[in-house]
Order: sequence, then structure tokens, then C-alpha cells
Amino acid sequence: MPLVRVSLLRGTSKEFRTAISDGVHRAMVETINVPALDRFQVITEHDKGDLVYDSSYLDIARSDGVVFIQITMNSGRTLEQKRALYHRIAELLAQNPGIRNEDVLVSLVEVPRENWSFGNGQAQYAE
Amino acid sequence: MPLVRVSLLRGTSKEFRTAISDGVHRAMVETINVPALDRFQVITEHDKGDLVYDSSYLDIARSDGVVFIQITMNSGRTLEQKRALYHRIAELLAQNPGIRNEDVLVSLVEVPRENWSFGNGQAQYAE
Amino acid sequence: MPLVRVSLLRGTSKEFRTAISDGVHRAMVETINVPALDRFQVITEHDKGDLVYDSSYLDIARSDGVVFIQITMNSGRTLEQKRALYHRIAELLAQNPGIRNEDVLVSLVEVPRENWSFGNGQAQYAE
Repeated sequence: MPLVRVSLLRGTSKEFRTAISDGVHRAMVETINVPALDRFQVITEHDKGDLVYDSSYLDIARSDGVVFIQITMNSGRTLEQKRALYHRIAELLAQNPGIRNEDVLVSLVEVPRENWSFGNGQAQYAE
Repeated sequence: MPLVRVSLLRGTSKEFRTAISDGVHRAMVETINVPALDRFQVITEHDKGDLVYDSSYLDIARSDGVVFIQITMNSGRTLEQKRALYHRIAELLAQNPGIRNEDVLVSLVEVPRENWSFGNGQAQYAE
Repeated sequence: MPLVRVSLLRGTSKEFRTAISDGVHRAMVETINVPALDRFQVITEHDKGDLVYDSSYLDIARSDGVVFIQITMNSGRTLEQKRALYHRIAELLAQNPGIRNEDVLVSLVEVPRENWSFGNGQAQYAE
């Protein structure tokens, strides 16, 4: 279980958000060894003014198509894996649903494996 | 202050969500020494498609009754305490409002004590 | 990129929430060296019952004007910087939009610098 929270501006279609969901998950499977079935996400839309972004920070030209992706996941991935993850998420979301690379922001929060319960009141990932 | 975020599908009653709130809080009080008054939670409902879960990962049969519970809390709890917490949350939510054990997912994020302000612009938990 | 999540009860004006956004960001710029353009926030309103707070924990008299501010940011700030941040957020939100000091709660989650991508699929803060 990574737990993925996706935040974007209101007004997209269900298909658009499903494509984001698919792309983020596929990128995690391909680059950081997330199991294909380990998919848990919360997607929220927000009114303008409630999703605040800077349109030029670090000379990246962001638009109202901006998407924040915050992933809580197990620690242990290398910097190279994280770089691959960022790159692949941006690449896949550009393909479908067609999000500009500049608009894809990612935040990782890492936790130990014992910090998850996947159901049944058990700590499935603890040794 | 643990800060608890509960995410579930749209369509539950206020009483149902209050029972989740009560159960999660009581489990924390009973198993990980959270003070009874230290209760701060955000509960959100989501449309289908915006709350994404796998219905079989780790051979646990999840349903649309799935509930994600993410708890930001102070570090320092042992693995045994975390196991007790997961177990007690599932147990209490099964009793009321009647959530299947398979549908209770928990994610813990741990922080140092100085990372909280409970009001008045002060770091009440820092030494 | 700190990523800031602000949660409050439903019924405030857009101007009210913008003042919160402004105040939290300004406090971070002034006290913990966040770049002025590094502004990324998600603000959500919730129905009563879905934003749960204790009205007296630690002898702080909270009201329905309560605001939860959770900030994911790079680790490395000292306790003194965190104290200054808490104090300045409360001070600025009291000035505008006029939030009681007792109602300002802050939660910090710290991550390493390589855990961010600000766009373009790159890890801009990794060395």
C-alpha cells in the first residue's frame, strides 16, 4: 500500500481522473516495485482558490491543469528509483489524459513497513 | 494530536461516520495511549472512481464499504502497540457502524513531538 | 514545496480562505526560509461532524472556527524555527481573516529533499 492522494482543480471528467489514477499506479509498478494489485488512491477536485499553486516557481510554467500527487509509501527506494518514478509519472500522464509535464507535482512521504494494515486488523507487512 | 484522516465512499449517514470517528478514537486511546481529549479528525466522502481500492490485494476481499484511515501521530509506538491498534480499530468498527474487517485499511505517519501546535501558536509537546 | 493542507468547517468566504492561504505562506517565508514563490496548498471545507476537534484539550478553548494546517516540508528546521512558525501563523491569521489563536492547529510532516518533483518529471531538490 502506497496510499496516493491526487488533488486537482474541479471540472475534469471521470475518464480524465481514471487516466491519472491508471498512470500514477502504472508508474509505481514499473519503477519502484509496487505490486500491481497494491492500488489505493483518493482523488479530490477543488475550486479555484482552494488549490493554490505558483505558476513559475523554479522556472516551471504551471497552469490550471496542475495536479498534486502525494504518495505515502514504504521507505527504502533509492534516489534513482525516485527519479525514475517522477519521470515515468509525468511521461504517462502526458500520454493520457494529456497533462503537461510542467503541471505534474509529486510529494513522497516514507514510512516503515509496520505502519500499514491492509485489512482484517493485521499488520501484513510487519515481520 | 494524532491527526486522523478518514476517507470512504459517498452515501453514508452522519451517524455512520460518527461511529467511525468514535471507534478510531477509542482504539487509539485504548491501545497507544492517546489522551481521551486529544481528538482531531477529518472525514471525507468520495465518489466512486475517486476512491480507488483493490478488491483482492493480499487475498483480502474488500468491498465498496472500504475505509482508509490515515493517522499522523508521534513516533515511539512499538510494533506490538501498532498491531493492537490495527486490531482494535477493526474490532470496534465491526461492532459499530458494522464495517467488515476486510474493509478497514490503516496508514500511520509518525512525526517527532515538536511537530505539533495545538493552538495559541505554541509547540505544546516540545520539551 | 512545502505542500500545505488546510481543513476547516464549511461556510467561509473565498476571501476568508485566501487570507488563510496568504498568512500561512507568509509565515513560512518569514520563519523557515520557504522561497516566496514556493507556494502549493490545498484548502478543504467540511460539514460539521466531519471535522472533529476537541474543544478543550490542553486547556485550549477551541471553537467551530478551528483550522487544521498540515504542512509536508523538507526536514532540517530547528525547534526554534518551528516555534517561530507556529507563533507567526497564529499571529497572522489573527490579523487576517481574524481567527482566534486557540483555533489554529498545526501539524508538520518532514521529508528528505529528494522526495519532491516540482514538475517536468524531475527531482529538482535532489543533489
